[in-house]
Amino acid sequence: MASYRCERDLLGEKELNEEVYYGIQTMRAMENFQITGYPPHKSLILALAHVKKAAAQANFEVGRLNQKTCDAIVTACDEILAGQFHEFFVVDAIQGGAGTSFNMNANEVIANRAIEILGGKRGDYLLVSPNTHVNMAQSTNDVFPTAIRLASLSLADGVLGALNNLVDALSLKEEEFNGVLKMGRTHLQDAVPIRLGQEFGAYARLIGRDVKRIKHSLDGLLEINMGATAVGTGLNADPEYIETVVQKLKENTGFDLYGAENLVDATQNTDTYVAISANLKICAVNLSKIANDLRLLASGPKCGFNEINLPSMQPGSSIMPGKVNPVMAEVVNQVSFQIIGNDHTICLASEAGQLELNVMEPVLTFNLLQSLDILRNVVTVFAEKCVKGITANVERCQELVQQSIGIVTAINPHVGYETASQVAKEALATGRSVREIVIERGILSEEELNTILNPYEMTKPGIAGKELLE
Amino acid sequence: MASYRCERDLLGEKELNEEVYYGIQTMRAMENFQITGYPPHKSLILALAHVKKAAAQANFEVGRLNQKTCDAIVTACDEILAGQFHEFFVVDAIQGGAGTSFNMNANEVIANRAIEILGGKRGDYLLVSPNTHVNMAQSTNDVFPTAIRLASLSLADGVLGALNNLVDALSLKEEEFNGVLKMGRTHLQDAVPIRLGQEFGAYARLIGRDVKRIKHSLDGLLEINMGATAVGTGLNADPEYIETVVQKLKENTGFDLYGAENLVDATQNTDTYVAISANLKICAVNLSKIANDLRLLASGPKCGFNEINLPSMQPGSSIMPGKVNPVMAEVVNQVSFQIIGNDHTICLASEAGQLELNVMEPVLTFNLLQSLDILRNVVTVFAEKCVKGITANVERCQELVQQSIGIVTAINPHVGYETASQVAKEALATGRSVREIVIERGILSEEELNTILNPYEMTKPGIAGKELLE
Amino acid sequence: MASYRCERDLLGEKELNEEVYYGIQTMRAMENFQITGYPPHKSLILALAHVKKAAAQANFEVGRLNQKTCDAIVTACDEILAGQFHEFFVVDAIQGGAGTSFNMNANEVIANRAIEILGGKRGDYLLVSPNTHVNMAQSTNDVFPTAIRLASLSLADGVLGALNNLVDALSLKEEEFNGVLKMGRTHLQDAVPIRLGQEFGAYARLIGRDVKRIKHSLDGLLEINMGATAVGTGLNADPEYIETVVQKLKENTGFDLYGAENLVDATQNTDTYVAISANLKICAVNLSKIANDLRLLASGPKCGFNEINLPSMQPGSSIMPGKVNPVMAEVVNQVSFQIIGNDHTICLASEAGQLELNVMEPVLTFNLLQSLDILRNVVTVFAEKCVKGITANVERCQELVQQSIGIVTAINPHVGYETASQVAKEALATGRSVREIVIERGILSEEELNTILNPYEMTKPGIAGKELLE
Amino acid sequence: MASYRCERDLLGEKELNEEVYYGIQTMRAMENFQITGYPPHKSLILALAHVKKAAAQANFEVGRLNQKTCDAIVTACDEILAGQFHEFFVVDAIQGGAGTSFNMNANEVIANRAIEILGGKRGDYLLVSPNTHVNMAQSTNDVFPTAIRLASLSLADGVLGALNNLVDALSLKEEEFNGVLKMGRTHLQDAVPIRLGQEFGAYARLIGRDVKRIKHSLDGLLEINMGATAVGTGLNADPEYIETVVQKLKENTGFDLYGAENLVDATQNTDTYVAISANLKICAVNLSKIANDLRLLASGPKCGFNEINLPSMQPGSSIMPGKVNPVMAEVVNQVSFQIIGNDHTICLASEAGQLELNVMEPVLTFNLLQSLDILRNVVTVFAEKCVKGITANVERCQELVQQSIGIVTAINPHVGYETASQVAKEALATGRSVREIVIERGILSEEELNTILNPYEMTKPGIAGKELLE
Repeated sequence: MASYRCERDLLGEKELNEEVYYGIQTMRAMENFQITGYPPHKSLILALAHVKKAAAQANFEVGRLNQKTCDAIVTACDEILAGQFHEFFVVDAIQGGAGTSFNMNANEVIANRAIEILGGKRGDYLLVSPNTHVNMAQSTNDVFPTAIRLASLSLADGVLGALNNLVDALSLKEEEFNGVLKMGRTHLQDAVPIRLGQEFGAYARLIGRDVKRIKHSLDGLLEINMGATAVGTGLNADPEYIETVVQKLKENTGFDLYGAENLVDATQNTDTYVAISANLKICAVNLSKIANDLRLLASGPKCGFNEINLPSMQPGSSIMPGKVNPVMAEVVNQVSFQIIGNDHTICLASEAGQLELNVMEPVLTFNLLQSLDILRNVVTVFAEKCVKGITANVERCQELVQQSIGIVTAINPHVGYETASQVAKEALATGRSVREIVIERGILSEEELNTILNPYEMTKPGIAGKELLE
Repeated sequence: MASYRCERDLLGEKELNEEVYYGIQTMRAMENFQITGYPPHKSLILALAHVKKAAAQANFEVGRLNQKTCDAIVTACDEILAGQFHEFFVVDAIQGGAGTSFNMNANEVIANRAIEILGGKRGDYLLVSPNTHVNMAQSTNDVFPTAIRLASLSLADGVLGALNNLVDALSLKEEEFNGVLKMGRTHLQDAVPIRLGQEFGAYARLIGRDVKRIKHSLDGLLEINMGATAVGTGLNADPEYIETVVQKLKENTGFDLYGAENLVDATQNTDTYVAISANLKICAVNLSKIANDLRLLASGPKCGFNEINLPSMQPGSSIMPGKVNPVMAEVVNQVSFQIIGNDHTICLASEAGQLELNVMEPVLTFNLLQSLDILRNVVTVFAEKCVKGITANVERCQELVQQSIGIVTAINPHVGYETASQVAKEALATGRSVREIVIERGILSEEELNTILNPYEMTKPGIAGKELLE
Repeated sequence: MASYRCERDLLGEKELNEEVYYGIQTMRAMENFQITGYPPHKSLILALAHVKKAAAQANFEVGRLNQKTCDAIVTACDEILAGQFHEFFVVDAIQGGAGTSFNMNANEVIANRAIEILGGKRGDYLLVSPNTHVNMAQSTNDVFPTAIRLASLSLADGVLGALNNLVDALSLKEEEFNGVLKMGRTHLQDAVPIRLGQEFGAYARLIGRDVKRIKHSLDGLLEINMGATAVGTGLNADPEYIETVVQKLKENTGFDLYGAENLVDATQNTDTYVAISANLKICAVNLSKIANDLRLLASGPKCGFNEINLPSMQPGSSIMPGKVNPVMAEVVNQVSFQIIGNDHTICLASEAGQLELNVMEPVLTFNLLQSLDILRNVVTVFAEKCVKGITANVERCQELVQQSIGIVTAINPHVGYETASQVAKEALATGRSVREIVIERGILSEEELNTILNPYEMTKPGIAGKELLE
Repeated sequence: MASYRCERDLLGEKELNEEVYYGIQTMRAMENFQITGYPPHKSLILALAHVKKAAAQANFEVGRLNQKTCDAIVTACDEILAGQFHEFFVVDAIQGGAGTSFNMNANEVIANRAIEILGGKRGDYLLVSPNTHVNMAQSTNDVFPTAIRLASLSLADGVLGALNNLVDALSLKEEEFNGVLKMGRTHLQDAVPIRLGQEFGAYARLIGRDVKRIKHSLDGLLEINMGATAVGTGLNADPEYIETVVQKLKENTGFDLYGAENLVDATQNTDTYVAISANLKICAVNLSKIANDLRLLASGPKCGFNEINLPSMQPGSSIMPGKVNPVMAEVVNQVSFQIIGNDHTICLASEAGQLELNVMEPVLTFNLLQSLDILRNVVTVFAEKCVKGITANVERCQELVQQSIGIVTAINPHVGYETASQVAKEALATGRSVREIVIERGILSEEELNTILNPYEMTKPGIAGKELLE
């Protein structure tokens, strides 16, 4: 049979199951915020444990927390960092109050665990108080932004790693397909020849720029506002403490953190997160474009472009036997759409900041961390289960080049755009080849054409048969 | 020790833990789509069980499925409808393949459970085949859209109920605050008097329109495309079966479903979902506006408008003692932002449909069902824990009306806009009252002013002191 | 040499060119808002002229405006309605102040023109005052929303007409292409046969639903808030005047207008516009999907799907002779993107409403009217210059069906999904036909196959060769 | 009477008014694209003239264009650069065809003007051909992206200048208001004291980061793809020409341009524009937040926060005399919403790129250049007509601090969070001051309180009365 303990706060009393490590404020938040059903992101729990640990250490160093209490708090935090007690972080990911409930959830769990370590009973906050001790010299308004930053940093590595892996996979295909001649298309209409490797090279460079953009925007995360307390003025935070807590956090996490130059600014503004999300979104736009291209190039097998094959990952249809679909590219599109939508939510949340604080940070954070997670996940499987296994249908590619009219562009410099247009028009109408028509009309000699109509040469800068012009 | 069974499909073999009810295609999907970590929405599992049950019943009625197999499938579906086996629906909510993996997950779980019911061993698909029997006369492309519709319908009721409850709560406040005179504000600047009840009445009507819009858009969900099979042409679906399956589904679910007039259209287009999301989004925009207003009106207590009090739901700060924040309104804003972002993702997914199918339906569905869920949840707590408990600071409201210059507008019809402007300007500059200045300048007599400057009259249509004009 | 007149307002004096009909407040707004460089939308100028005319008529009827002044104001409005003086509507389309500058621009132009009609000199506002007479019993907060509604209604007809015309054009193609057999594609992969007419039928129904949705949402525009004045309480607006002005406006415009049931609600909320924009956006999403499909189906001519031909509207390339691009479909995509973006802006503007007013209406209106304009324009040219001229490459379509493996789906009911899968796999690997393999393996007889593999039958509901199953 | 000339292209003949400088392809585009009614952006016309000039110079240098023709083309371009002939750039800003119509419009105008310079008659393209000469070695697919980049660069300077000016204006206010003590607010609820200068300092830093972000993203514009021709392979573009044309463009424009490392990538991808737009959007989000804050702080004058005064720019109401609204801040919000919506359109357009080209560049460009324009415009007037003229209501600010309960936070370190909460609660309930209650309850002595409750000290990091703790 469950037994209960009674806790009280500003608004009154509540009974809590004796077993739980969280306290009355967490319980209120659970009742108030039954929204998504999702708990805080694991990376956020870890980040907040880091913050609480560093704060305790700093408060001890500046003489405000005694050794025993500090040690108990630090031990509790270390246990959370080791993966324990996460089941007691129970406030909804989307919550009112700018993260106060999440902060208090941590303060209460840590306090109760520290009490236990010190031999007390959960709920005996005279021993260790969630506010007075665990939250000492802190406010939600500095610890939550700091935790968001740490959590984002901890996820960002995986994102960059996955993207770099994708760039490598694309670059390998650039090399592998360097000699595969095919038709280029603009407006989905046959244009002029290109090499398949050139197409993959363009993809690699595109994602390469995404890596740079995302990396660059991550720098902003290193500036943390510990010591800002409620509104950035640093009320109740000793300057020595501020310096120390940043130093501890830097040491404990290994991230190259530094204290914000202007704590008021750093407390109220969320542009750093918006900038990261914006760069994730650009990456999503780019990934979606690449996924679209791959699905187009692999369309068929009989009634489409059929220039490349994507690896078969699973049967594609519950009714059409033998059908295999480009599922890995499709999930890239879908995750891209999710990230773009998330970015929208993040912008709305950021714009809604008012005066000294942005109280919409929980929904902002929920979306930012989700975007980081799913981008890493999808890019990983996309590289491994799609890009790396792509093969080219070399003959099909060449065959399409042979049939195409687009190679007529190469005779432009020799005969002018207007004459070339007439040839193209006739070729399309009659189904005869460009070469045939040009010779028949006496526009160029067969010999000249042999020099000019070299599809491979057409894939490099230069005027084919330039010497003929001189 | 775990034992394994071996399954095979088009792409080869895989070992599965003997205990699991899903099969090889589900397993492939699990490996391919480690994206969000979220399983399919519960309402979607239930909806798909309904679809599979009705299809088995219909296939039996048209003579394609024997009684024994039909019964086993129906029993398996009923068990799922009763909440069993949900743990075996394991494919990621965001997945490539237009829902094929989710459909196959259901087909496999149902087949294996039916096999078991028939005395066979899981994996013995000769007894009951996921494709040939459970998916008989079906395609992902008709069962998945139908399931989305059923799931949305099942959630929509809760949304409408919650919104209606909010409208009632707002209307009660409209009545309760009918006599509370206060200043109206435009541009956040003092305007002319209004009654607090009028403000809540406007909120009630606004949300009332949302109810109508959402309701209206739900109608589209009743048209289902069962029988469309792969591309809407109905290949492999007997017309008699089509009629029967719709009828069964209607009976079994209680929703007033009907078969799509044009199955090709109904299979490839997702505009119905987009329309629902659009209306949820409009509601989100409106809720956010109301939440903003309430937070403004409750700003203070000492340094803000302080015209109303929102119920205290939890301590508001980990550092500032006694602070209570408008957390329920804040979570409304945040959920609104989430829904607006989700709508964006849904539009992107819908626009990406190509030819006979929209393969982006999984991400679309993930967002649509989430929006329905969180809207219902947040509106429920908003009504219960915020709106219903709002109280007015009647004296503060009146005091502000007394101080304001905006009442000068009422003398306009009597003295002209230009003269009234001069009075207003002087009142602001000197801090003296409008009344005082008007009398001093001999613009109107004290008696006339008593008639005209009646704030309560100003909150109703009409020209105060109209008789003076005649 | 230009001569000047001096005008004054609350904030001081300004010199205006004697020639201009606008006055000091317009001039201030011109100086303050040099933003887009776009003047107010023509439909908005006409709408506001209607409002001012009806207000003058109503004020005359209730005895507050004398006949002479009323007549002069009405005549000035009629001249504006006839297209005169539009060059004096000079305030930027995006402006601060919730439309006050636009309203004052109209008040000043009408006042000055009325003064002139009455034999006075522009600027002699004692004769006719912009505020006291032209704006009598009005506020920007009722006239501007009313004008937005009238302007939207006046544009909406053209939008619906254009969309209906498009539906007709698509329906004609549905009929024309009814017998054109082709491959259906899902996931851009070959699926099962369909008829080209079925594809166009789906498009027609999709846009048909858009027409219904847009039409339905337009109803909200008929409810106008004339008489609300500043905050919806109707201060300074006589009830008799309110009834009369609505009646006049209804008669003068021919729209079935009625007075808002709750003027406070109607003054502060913009959900009606958001709902229209949402439906325009859904239509944009759908148009973009159709345009994408058409571009895909017309891809080639040699290296793509090449199933249909879009009319050639202009040479497609400055460098590639003979190239013709799907420019009309492309501009549909682009306008769709614009409308989707506009909807985003509109939502942001609506969400930013505060208390008694939404001051962001100018940007909202700018985007709404633009969306209506460009949707009408693009749909018109799309129907006329693209859809109506589409032709089918019947032989190419048939050829692709012949080659495809997807027809294997039809043998499913006869041999089971697993066997059919093996056939499909072999057909793809070897390049041999499904028919050949089935017969060789003795799965079905040639006679049976002839019955089953009838592509045309596959495009209708039913099991091909159903009698063989019995 | 107008006389006509006849021109012909691939699709047939058309009559053109003899007077016009554009030709048949422009005319077709005019007929096809009646969409927005907006011509190409002026900066785009200038940019394209630069491109055409540099190309002619380079083609001359590599020996493909003779001196006479080159000179005529260069002169024609210089005239356009000087502002002439812009009225003949008539194709709609939103057009199908990836900018081909705009490029051909330029080619035709320049050719006709060059013909005229050489003594010929407009339309005599044997003298100077739009395609063969003016467009020599070019494709829309390299000249249009290059022109977008030049146009964006030419506008970007103004944007950065305006933003820097705003940062300066905010910084001046930071200094000016350094000593103005006021209440900080979080959640719109009274928090703890802050100085008004600190608030403006935070704004200055926020916009300062925007400047950095935008500047950083502009770098990408310097990489141009001249020489890419149709698909980035450089077909028909001599390597020597490529080098020369980039060099000429760099010299002629003064921008530090360089040729793209990978022309295929640079031709098909639009991420550089998306990145700029993303950073403009972030800036818009930030500006909107600041505008919201200023409107809040200036709310009143009698019934709001009334801590600051925004300069009076125009009468605020057509009905409420003396009302002045925060119109400059409001227009900032509105432009922000427009830019955020534009960014959405830009993302959609970018995602829609396919294979070798993004044909949606016209709508992308329309929105990008508009965002640059209106951001520069609004930031300019915001700094000049709003921020620079802001004044503080010093006494009102102090008065609010005196009344507030939030200062209780400062006693936290001395008495613990729980005790402080009780004091706060009582202060709110009774209306008595924190000081009074603390002393009455004997929590701290009057002397101690004098040390601790120093509001000015509270606006700096540190524990007020720290010495008392030791």
